[in-house]
Amino acid sequence: MKNLYKTITAIFILAISATLSHLNAADVKSVKYVFLFIGDGMSIPQRMMTEEFLKKSGDEGLFINQMPNQAITYTRSANSFITDSAASGTAIACGTKTNNGRIGVDSDGKKLESIAYVAKTSGKKVGIVTSVTMNHATPAAFYAHNVSRGNYYQISLDAISSNFDYFGGGGMMKHDDSKNKSYKSDFYTLAESAGYKVLRGSEQIKAFKNDANKLMAYGSDEALPYAIDNSDNLKLADFVKLGIDFMKDSPQGFFMMAEGGKIDWMCHANDAATVMREVVDFDNAVKVACEFAKSHPSQTLIVVTGDHETGGLTLGFAGTGYESFIQLLKNQKCSQDAFDKKIKQSIADNPKMSFEDAMELAQDNFGLKLNADKKDPMKLSSEEIDSLKSAFEKQKSKNKSHFTRALIKCLDNKCALAWTSGAHTALPVNTTAIGAQSENFKGAIDNTDIAKILKQAVK
Amino acid sequence: MKNLYKTITAIFILAISATLSHLNAADVKSVKYVFLFIGDGMSIPQRMMTEEFLKKSGDEGLFINQMPNQAITYTRSANSFITDSAASGTAIACGTKTNNGRIGVDSDGKKLESIAYVAKTSGKKVGIVTSVTMNHATPAAFYAHNVSRGNYYQISLDAISSNFDYFGGGGMMKHDDSKNKSYKSDFYTLAESAGYKVLRGSEQIKAFKNDANKLMAYGSDEALPYAIDNSDNLKLADFVKLGIDFMKDSPQGFFMMAEGGKIDWMCHANDAATVMREVVDFDNAVKVACEFAKSHPSQTLIVVTGDHETGGLTLGFAGTGYESFIQLLKNQKCSQDAFDKKIKQSIADNPKMSFEDAMELAQDNFGLKLNADKKDPMKLSSEEIDSLKSAFEKQKSKNKSHFTRALIKCLDNKCALAWTSGAHTALPVNTTAIGAQSENFKGAIDNTDIAKILKQAVK
Repeated sequence: MKNLYKTITAIFILAISATLSHLNAADVKSVKYVFLFIGDGMSIPQRMMTEEFLKKSGDEGLFINQMPNQAITYTRSANSFITDSAASGTAIACGTKTNNGRIGVDSDGKKLESIAYVAKTSGKKVGIVTSVTMNHATPAAFYAHNVSRGNYYQISLDAISSNFDYFGGGGMMKHDDSKNKSYKSDFYTLAESAGYKVLRGSEQIKAFKNDANKLMAYGSDEALPYAIDNSDNLKLADFVKLGIDFMKDSPQGFFMMAEGGKIDWMCHANDAATVMREVVDFDNAVKVACEFAKSHPSQTLIVVTGDHETGGLTLGFAGTGYESFIQLLKNQKCSQDAFDKKIKQSIADNPKMSFEDAMELAQDNFGLKLNADKKDPMKLSSEEIDSLKSAFEKQKSKNKSHFTRALIKCLDNKCALAWTSGAHTALPVNTTAIGAQSENFKGAIDNTDIAKILKQAVK
Repeated sequence: MKNLYKTITAIFILAISATLSHLNAADVKSVKYVFLFIGDGMSIPQRMMTEEFLKKSGDEGLFINQMPNQAITYTRSANSFITDSAASGTAIACGTKTNNGRIGVDSDGKKLESIAYVAKTSGKKVGIVTSVTMNHATPAAFYAHNVSRGNYYQISLDAISSNFDYFGGGGMMKHDDSKNKSYKSDFYTLAESAGYKVLRGSEQIKAFKNDANKLMAYGSDEALPYAIDNSDNLKLADFVKLGIDFMKDSPQGFFMMAEGGKIDWMCHANDAATVMREVVDFDNAVKVACEFAKSHPSQTLIVVTGDHETGGLTLGFAGTGYESFIQLLKNQKCSQDAFDKKIKQSIADNPKMSFEDAMELAQDNFGLKLNADKKDPMKLSSEEIDSLKSAFEKQKSKNKSHFTRALIKCLDNKCALAWTSGAHTALPVNTTAIGAQSENFKGAIDNTDIAKILKQAVK
């Protein structure tokens, strides 16, 4: 019976002629400027939540959601229904499924060639940009080869040997890791010896006069701050702009991968408002590429994807039924991390801090109100108050983050948002695309298809 | 700034030429046989969960997931981010957004024309099939017009006045509703007076000799039984087969809509195993259409969609991290409803029933074990046991379904599945398609596009 239907399907498909042909001959020509944007942990719910918030706020929505082509993109890894960022990064970058944890190598440990190397070989300049640390799994998959994503120092050395033209965003973790067996010297020193101009911190970056052959520009040694907490710091968009300015005169064009990495981090923390602001920040970075594309419309391809879903975010919640109040996210003023620091400091300053005092801080940062008019959507119910009170006492006694997390859960649920996991889920992502050859991103694709299509485009 | 990006996008799209053209001139010709299958509440997670279960069981997966074309399909209604089945049914059937609750009429109450009426007008036969009651929202949207989905009797009368050729599956709710203002007579009597041959129950249906002009074949007055509980009863696939046999000689061909309606019901109940079996049952019904298409490959179009996501199902759970154990769903032997009846009967028979006795019944039906080897994935942890014990005591004292629901939650979580709502969510669905003009179902579409595309196809 199984084979019967396999046969029927085959006959049927042949009879009417299959219509999916991602890689037909006509497409096999080079696109001069290719951008690949990856929202880490950004799947369909993360994009829709942000879109809905923006539209309810009178904005026109996300640019990344307005692109003319869209493909549902499946993400499983070689050894798991639920992928991690290393395996999905490798799939997107190299076009091959691998086991969770692996960077630029297959399940047997064999080195794979990423889109970035294909682009470099064909004479393009290559830029790698991220809002998190540069040797994190997603950016690493484009320039490194390692059986374990945790070998940060080794991975950072691969950035140097890649000879890619531009690295921008967060710096290298464990760059000065003298306990590491493969340790030679501080990463930044080695990068300079290899001919890279290395800029560290906003001041150096802002003063840069485009006088370098190969450039590394790191906003800090760590990830960039969360968009919701970040007012003046350099943002993902700034590093995309810097890369475009640095590489735009390349005769063969360039390939740039830019990752919004902290979408994932705050999905792990189940903090919807911070995720939403990260997605907007990511969208702003894509707009910079689009601004560039305006002068090169037929020579530019912009592809936007996610590497997996994180957090099990759902656009609905048991307590709110068929209603949705995503616009209430506007009440949150800072990230989970930032509030946690504030409340911990307040408790340290005043170990007898009362629940009522804590709730004043909570109201300032999340809009949640102990006392308010019945109709006020931010009024806490007695069950919510009991639950927050108990979380506050736990946080006070254990110096952990119970209260912070409970406040954010409470706000998210009021918005009709819910989460089921601190890890990833198997939900597919959506890939959107605009520009030359973007019509290849339609229908249903596997994450490895992104690399397969883009390797043709950058050749 | 907003308008700037709007302009940039427009220029960019124009410059490279937009690639989405669902309704280009070449497509505007009639397809002889058009099938539209709707899984109620069946979104991407429901399809993927079932696929993963089947593949882990050595099966080749869902036929509906193997179709060559796929489109992500957005579902919001005219007045809500989260649609109900009436508004989404109307959008899919008629191509117009309406408010939640409305059947075949727009937000102002104006009557809309469904694909089914367009097909009928163009000389095709029309069949409407469902596994739930025939005057439920989804099937109703194809033949009825009513400002409220709850007006079941009025809606049933519209089935008669539609003059459609075939209705099959579950019967009419409130068919003998003499309290209703518009009540004329028992629905079935009226249908017979209007020239329908009305078959009620398996026996009459199995004995049918194709000797009718217009046919109604209802397996019962209610929904068909759940697939997980149903061994001998007629299934959705049988009603699709009956409809094909009844309409296949029509010179202009036919349009058939078939709904898997109980996927939604058990998503509302957050019962993953029953949902999974319903999706398989639905897939079997689609295979019947495919079998027919084998003889008419260039004249048949099969489209499979969902009307919305129900339950906030996520393919991952906090307690299981990056791992997934969906194959453990095989341990569940009956639906939530069936088990609830069993346990309620057992408690009624023995009001002093012990938790240990109840857990014997639970082990038989869900595989959950109080005592087992540490490595046994079905072994209950002490926290799980405490939670089940408390649920059992509540169910005993209140005669509600706490224990039943707690057992299913426990099993689903062990499978790395979780739910966040008893209602719907705003997650898009995926639409897959095979056959003539199926290439129109690619990229991103709105649920109203399904009607727009199919109205061209059935003309």
